[in-house]
Amino acid sequence: MDAIDSLRERLAEVADLGSVEMLVVWDQLVMMPAAGAPARAQQLGTLARLSHERSTAADIGAWLDQLDGASLDELDRDIVRVARRDWERACRVPDELAVELARASADGQDSWQAARAADDFDAFAPALERNVALAREYAACVAGDGQSAYDALLDDYDFGLRTDELRRVFGELARELPALVPAASERTPPRVLDVPVAAQQAAVAGTLRRLGVDDGSWRVDVSAHPFTAWVGMHDSRVTTRYSDGEVESLLSSLHEYGHALYERQLDPALDRTNLGSGTSMSIHESQSKLWENHVARSPDFADVLAAELGQGGFAVSPADLHASLVGVEASLIRVSADPLTYPLHIIARFELELAMIEGELEIADLPAAWREAMGRLLGVEVPSDRLGCLQDVHWGAGSFGYFPSYALGCLIAAQLWEAMEGELGALGEELRRGELGRVQLWLGEHVHRHGRRLDTTELVERATGRGLEIAPFMRYVAPLAGA
Amino acid sequence: MDAIDSLRERLAEVADLGSVEMLVVWDQLVMMPAAGAPARAQQLGTLARLSHERSTAADIGAWLDQLDGASLDELDRDIVRVARRDWERACRVPDELAVELARASADGQDSWQAARAADDFDAFAPALERNVALAREYAACVAGDGQSAYDALLDDYDFGLRTDELRRVFGELARELPALVPAASERTPPRVLDVPVAAQQAAVAGTLRRLGVDDGSWRVDVSAHPFTAWVGMHDSRVTTRYSDGEVESLLSSLHEYGHALYERQLDPALDRTNLGSGTSMSIHESQSKLWENHVARSPDFADVLAAELGQGGFAVSPADLHASLVGVEASLIRVSADPLTYPLHIIARFELELAMIEGELEIADLPAAWREAMGRLLGVEVPSDRLGCLQDVHWGAGSFGYFPSYALGCLIAAQLWEAMEGELGALGEELRRGELGRVQLWLGEHVHRHGRRLDTTELVERATGRGLEIAPFMRYVAPLAGA
Repeated sequence: MDAIDSLRERLAEVADLGSVEMLVVWDQLVMMPAAGAPARAQQLGTLARLSHERSTAADIGAWLDQLDGASLDELDRDIVRVARRDWERACRVPDELAVELARASADGQDSWQAARAADDFDAFAPALERNVALAREYAACVAGDGQSAYDALLDDYDFGLRTDELRRVFGELARELPALVPAASERTPPRVLDVPVAAQQAAVAGTLRRLGVDDGSWRVDVSAHPFTAWVGMHDSRVTTRYSDGEVESLLSSLHEYGHALYERQLDPALDRTNLGSGTSMSIHESQSKLWENHVARSPDFADVLAAELGQGGFAVSPADLHASLVGVEASLIRVSADPLTYPLHIIARFELELAMIEGELEIADLPAAWREAMGRLLGVEVPSDRLGCLQDVHWGAGSFGYFPSYALGCLIAAQLWEAMEGELGALGEELRRGELGRVQLWLGEHVHRHGRRLDTTELVERATGRGLEIAPFMRYVAPLAGA
Repeated sequence: MDAIDSLRERLAEVADLGSVEMLVVWDQLVMMPAAGAPARAQQLGTLARLSHERSTAADIGAWLDQLDGASLDELDRDIVRVARRDWERACRVPDELAVELARASADGQDSWQAARAADDFDAFAPALERNVALAREYAACVAGDGQSAYDALLDDYDFGLRTDELRRVFGELARELPALVPAASERTPPRVLDVPVAAQQAAVAGTLRRLGVDDGSWRVDVSAHPFTAWVGMHDSRVTTRYSDGEVESLLSSLHEYGHALYERQLDPALDRTNLGSGTSMSIHESQSKLWENHVARSPDFADVLAAELGQGGFAVSPADLHASLVGVEASLIRVSADPLTYPLHIIARFELELAMIEGELEIADLPAAWREAMGRLLGVEVPSDRLGCLQDVHWGAGSFGYFPSYALGCLIAAQLWEAMEGELGALGEELRRGELGRVQLWLGEHVHRHGRRLDTTELVERATGRGLEIAPFMRYVAPLAGA
């Protein structure tokens, strides 16, 4: 067999293992009886180990060497380019470090859970200290020429993105966005609509159906935390959750739809290759945020959502519904933050994790630094670490460099939406009618089909004609502050 | 690492892959959107290939050689004994033949499906011819000293069972059982109870709850064909199906419960070893048949089932319900056959597949031979191949030696039930009260906990004090014929 065929066969195997892992996790969160948890952890450990072994095996290196300078078509060239990148990166991590990272991540999550419940940062500090030290050790292994430790960590989530670029973009946001918060809080304050769960369920089902979600190739289920699983190109599974009197389900189901649509609209030629998935965390998040912020939260699409709630027996005007979906309030908790203040929560985390990785912030000083950042960026006082630096699992799990993608997603979504409207014309009328066909097509063409062939920065430039910028997002949130 | 630790680690990995495969198949049959099928086939292919590679890798042979004569505790001795057996058997099959068998099985099932739909045996004959030839080739690879081809095939389903033993047992049954059919058909003819689906659902849920089926470690779902998946020792999943006016769901849910209970009551020390599963197809089937025939179909347990149907809003007397669960009628279709005639359907298939494997029956002559056997054993005339030799998928899938386990399950269930009552005393009162705790315990002690440590024949002898015999089954069905 040719080296390219051998390589592609191995990549297909690894892709299949990834899909199976996705399914096994989906089952764990949606279907599994609780007592199945210990066996499930073993099963997932075995899948991860096998997948790692098969992706780092020496034969891949031999095939890649044989393919050096080979005459290949464009797709195979990209496959080989990304395979070499992934393989070299994986091989730079010694097995013992990989094992230690996995163990520290599991321990850290346990420690975090207990510490958060007890609101006891000191109980969590040793685990965090260990995670930071291991992340620096890991970064030292994988860093390329001239890369800082944080650059090297970012590459796992957004290949090619640089810390300096984040400093620039988040710096601008940190200067401009906080000024809008007081006016927006006054103009569009939080409003609660007392929507019964049954009406939410009907509206979620009806809205997703309008977007092409059918039983033949989708599942829509309930889980404790909404998420998306792409088990196959035609097997997309989103989840949501319902709380009486809240409208989060409308936003979160559209958010998850955005993730799912990305994976469904990949070029079929990329299926079962190393290019057959979303290219980065921030582009993935831009797709979910686009449907959450620019569709679900648009005043135009409120017509559709209000009509669907009406079908579910809950009468509400589009204007009132829209107001309840965009209420702004500086708050303590990231996951329930409004569309305007959300990126500020992320900027605080970016500053703090960067300082920890660069050794400029002692772990013991994190709670105080958190309070300072939240005061400066959001003007809120943090009454406890449980509502402060203990609220997210990421650092407990050893994930550093992940948080930025949440804010980048907001920025890129706004930039893509403007580029789309620049090309297609204003979309308000189509949003009011619930006709999203042209939006789906444009995203498929400019974002989705490329899979991992384009990295974050190049994708943004090609799709929007410009580098990453904050202006489109600022224009998106300005109306909330009456600006 | 010691050879025994290395071996156990590998066996744990293979066991995990098996559990994952079980889950992936469960999802395919219960949850997957239809369009997910092509990707799912790829994923299952990859899992099977990996599992095969890891179970046949040369390092296992090296570890086994190192362990030859090593001082091991009893459990490890059994692990090594069965590992050697499995490994040597798997290694005897050349890779090309394994690939060809898998391909022929997939093709054969396609061919069978089309041929059955068209009632066209000739369209299926070439695929069957190929499957028989490959099964003989496979048998020649794996056969031990003095084993016939059919012996060698049987070993995949019931290790250690011999064709001569089946000839003896099935020969006795074929002589004695048909004589009961006319009397039983007259005395307990089929009766249809018009039970609505909702009442069946309530009765299934209520009955399973009495047997310990709770949401914390079980799932009960609906699928086109009832089956059981054991995803972990505490993650058991049974399915059933509901048709208006039928009571099959009561029988099939207890049947599947029997399979699930077997895997749940294995000795926990066997978990993630090569011994941690049911020992054979016939013992597995004996567990499902025990709950189907000796619990669900007992006149005593009819009290419970009638009460549960009553809770579901359908009033019926225990006697009428029992009559509807045991109606006897010589018929054409195996899967809907009554408890008395069921083994005769199997004997016909055993005779015919044995003759095909031994080269004594030409494929082209199968339809005529089928008609002859069904006439002789069941006294029925077969009007078409669709209702005759094309009704089952097994031969299309290349499974020869599998059918006997269905009838053996009936025989062994009856033999175990008599042994249990011999030890515990008559169980009628407990069945009437729906208290099955002692039955569960006895099965756990005498059957389940052993896993693969005991093969079929040894297990039956130890649990019942006797070799395999037909007398207990004959005593079980005698009352149906008023004998």
